[in-house]
Amino acid sequence: MPSDSSTGRPVGRGAKVRTAVHAATLAELVDKGYAALTVENIAQRAGVHKTTVYRRWKDRESLLTDALAEHMATDIPVPDTGALETDLRALARSIVQAFNSPAGQAILAAMFTGAAHLPEIAAARRHVFDDRLARAQPVVTRAVERGQLPEGTDPAELLKTLAAPIYLRLLITAEPVDEATADQTVRVTLAAARAGALRPVRDDPPVGE
Amino acid sequence: MPSDSSTGRPVGRGAKVRTAVHAATLAELVDKGYAALTVENIAQRAGVHKTTVYRRWKDRESLLTDALAEHMATDIPVPDTGALETDLRALARSIVQAFNSPAGQAILAAMFTGAAHLPEIAAARRHVFDDRLARAQPVVTRAVERGQLPEGTDPAELLKTLAAPIYLRLLITAEPVDEATADQTVRVTLAAARAGALRPVRDDPPVGE
Repeated sequence: MPSDSSTGRPVGRGAKVRTAVHAATLAELVDKGYAALTVENIAQRAGVHKTTVYRRWKDRESLLTDALAEHMATDIPVPDTGALETDLRALARSIVQAFNSPAGQAILAAMFTGAAHLPEIAAARRHVFDDRLARAQPVVTRAVERGQLPEGTDPAELLKTLAAPIYLRLLITAEPVDEATADQTVRVTLAAARAGALRPVRDDPPVGE
Repeated sequence: MPSDSSTGRPVGRGAKVRTAVHAATLAELVDKGYAALTVENIAQRAGVHKTTVYRRWKDRESLLTDALAEHMATDIPVPDTGALETDLRALARSIVQAFNSPAGQAILAAMFTGAAHLPEIAAARRHVFDDRLARAQPVVTRAVERGQLPEGTDPAELLKTLAAPIYLRLLITAEPVDEATADQTVRVTLAAARAGALRPVRDDPPVGE
């Protein structure tokens, strides 16, 4: 297979190296944290030479960003249980579980604390979130088709309403997040969605006091 | 007046110095950002000697934390309009406005990006948020007393539901936040609260599909 010249990313044999280096990056991050992350240690852990890493990534920042983006693009499965409430509960619990694992804690700390000052990391946060949002939208559109939610319910708005209280706890209040946190945001999101509060405002009568 | 030995904070004449140094810290932060913040520049701007600053704060980190905590403890007024919806709207719009000002942008960048790695800053984020939450709770308890919300509505949970989507946009999706963002989170929060989804879960029948 040819390499993909538009991204510079290797394919075939190169893909194996890439996977190994990504895995080593995350493992080093979990074990030692962002501040202690070095290309040398990552290369050693991946069983490749340092120059092999530098041929593909210009520095530890771009390597970290790439590894995080790939990891987070796949770490939360999109449920399809046939019912909205169980889908949303599975989704919210997946988010909570992802951030409670040792890897999740290390990733959270790197993305929002240790490496938060890197523009690449800010871009990765947006990108990862947007990507998850796009992949989860069928949960909402299926529910609208099944008549479980009002016509016109905005999938992105609903999913942001679902995720927001979890991130508030993770990033600001530092409260623990657990299944109860997940289930509570499902209750709030469902109540708001069923009341029509997650449709675009122009389609909605004013909310009375 | 004696100095307060429990906090080491000066009072009287010292309070004026403290106010001037805090103001200079925020002004330097707004003009130059966290990375370029120095005690020397802050002292010069405040019109005091550098040693005066170091007598009160051990380093720029503790000075910044202190200045931010004081600024944010007072920068969002708690509304009392007589009606829940207008109170919540005023509250949500105040949060949005605070973060859209040049000072708010600089503070946000320092607290969540430039200085996010400092443990003092993480503690300040929690403290500032908890303090605002405590001060705003009467908005909810008054509404319950007026019969505008179900008995048992949890004030902290309601206010976190209100704030969470704003912070999600500020910290993750990097979408603009504006009056429409504020008004949308009010709609969602009100709909959820009126449906009883913001009461402790043990008091509530299961949410049906």
